[in-house]
Amino acid sequence: MDKIHINIIGGGNVATHLIREFLKHPEIHLQQLYARNLDQLKEFEGIATLINDLNLLTPADITIVAVSDDAIASIARQLENYPSLVVHTSGSKSMEELQNLEKGVFYPFQSFSKERKQINFKNVPVLIEAENPENLEKLTFLGNILSDKVYEMNSSQRKALHIAGVFAANFTNHMYVLAHQIMKENNIPFDLIVPLIHEVAEKVSNLPPIEAQTGPAVRNDLKTIEEHLAALDKSKKKIYELLTQSIIENKNLK
Amino acid sequence: MDKIHINIIGGGNVATHLIREFLKHPEIHLQQLYARNLDQLKEFEGIATLINDLNLLTPADITIVAVSDDAIASIARQLENYPSLVVHTSGSKSMEELQNLEKGVFYPFQSFSKERKQINFKNVPVLIEAENPENLEKLTFLGNILSDKVYEMNSSQRKALHIAGVFAANFTNHMYVLAHQIMKENNIPFDLIVPLIHEVAEKVSNLPPIEAQTGPAVRNDLKTIEEHLAALDKSKKKIYELLTQSIIENKNLK
Repeated sequence: MDKIHINIIGGGNVATHLIREFLKHPEIHLQQLYARNLDQLKEFEGIATLINDLNLLTPADITIVAVSDDAIASIARQLENYPSLVVHTSGSKSMEELQNLEKGVFYPFQSFSKERKQINFKNVPVLIEAENPENLEKLTFLGNILSDKVYEMNSSQRKALHIAGVFAANFTNHMYVLAHQIMKENNIPFDLIVPLIHEVAEKVSNLPPIEAQTGPAVRNDLKTIEEHLAALDKSKKKIYELLTQSIIENKNLK
Repeated sequence: MDKIHINIIGGGNVATHLIREFLKHPEIHLQQLYARNLDQLKEFEGIATLINDLNLLTPADITIVAVSDDAIASIARQLENYPSLVVHTSGSKSMEELQNLEKGVFYPFQSFSKERKQINFKNVPVLIEAENPENLEKLTFLGNILSDKVYEMNSSQRKALHIAGVFAANFTNHMYVLAHQIMKENNIPFDLIVPLIHEVAEKVSNLPPIEAQTGPAVRNDLKTIEEHLAALDKSKKKIYELLTQSIIENKNLK
């Protein structure tokens, strides 16, 4: 079977990880990579064709717009008469953001940081959406090369999933940030908490999170909660109070 | 070398995991297990001596009080004239909670749920404290049987570490609970988010959490933030607002 020809627009975290992954699969031909600032694509110099002018973009099987949410509409306007399938990679934007292009969505549900060299894409759910069965099939084909988990999902469900991801990934990471600060202030190396972080994440592989809840709030250990609040600065105290209250409310709902 | 003789007081999550682990090591003799309600120790029937009367407790090398924070002082009072080393397993209580017993602390820094069958103890930091070098050596000896990471830590540092753990483990798990609710309301299976949860936890193995932060808050993507807030119920909205604000504040501090 012929190679599938892919263009990628964008030089951020998502684009970088998609490009790194696509390069591993001989079934995929990376045709053109676009970034406004070519520095963002430096690691792919000599490996793929880099462009910084959208007028140079040639037709492909799929053109993936992996840019920040706010930039999608402007890219779509610049591609106005582009003749082939264009998809974005955003959780929160609907397919309609791509206006009157032949369009779809290719949303890999993962948290991407450039600094992380490798991601195991096999486990990364890829949520796709398109306007017709033919394009859906194209996106399924591409998704299956990367991942064992390709699902069709409409824009409204995808938006809900993205919000869930903000809680489970972005806010969770922020909890690590606050823990790190507390440890630093007390001269405790961050390494000490990494096995705990891993175990808590591992638990939910086979235990519903509500069953995995531990700690002073769910135990209703008011004495410890008070001691902790007394030890925290104003901004961490506010967070501790609100989350403790939420844990208690959810325990009662259980 | 002779076996080290251990008694364990308690039948909750920490006691259960310590007992399961100790049973794997031939160097450890589990002498007596105490719980007020012997049902809690049912899985150890026929494997160790179970008692539900503290007057029956015999001297040992180390007696580990693995009970809820609030119960430690009462156990200590009941053990008043007990002649050998007694340690508790609490992050937040000082060693003094054990009053005038020969005392110490043996704090495995991990989140324990009975429902999790196995924990890799080799990676679990064990923080110990004692009143004299002899007892410190005893606790080090026991700690080294289980873990590669045994450190002496005083009560005040241990308390800070415990607070960090509340953020990185208990509050993090609560973020998973909220994500789960959002997904359930939208008929999305929880499985879909597990790879994301794992990746976010994995990242901090080699990236400081502040560098690993992704999502609308750190990108200052106000449009997405507003859309998310509009989609959330009152209690999740409050949490979303506060944590978003905190992510932005910390970004500016960076």
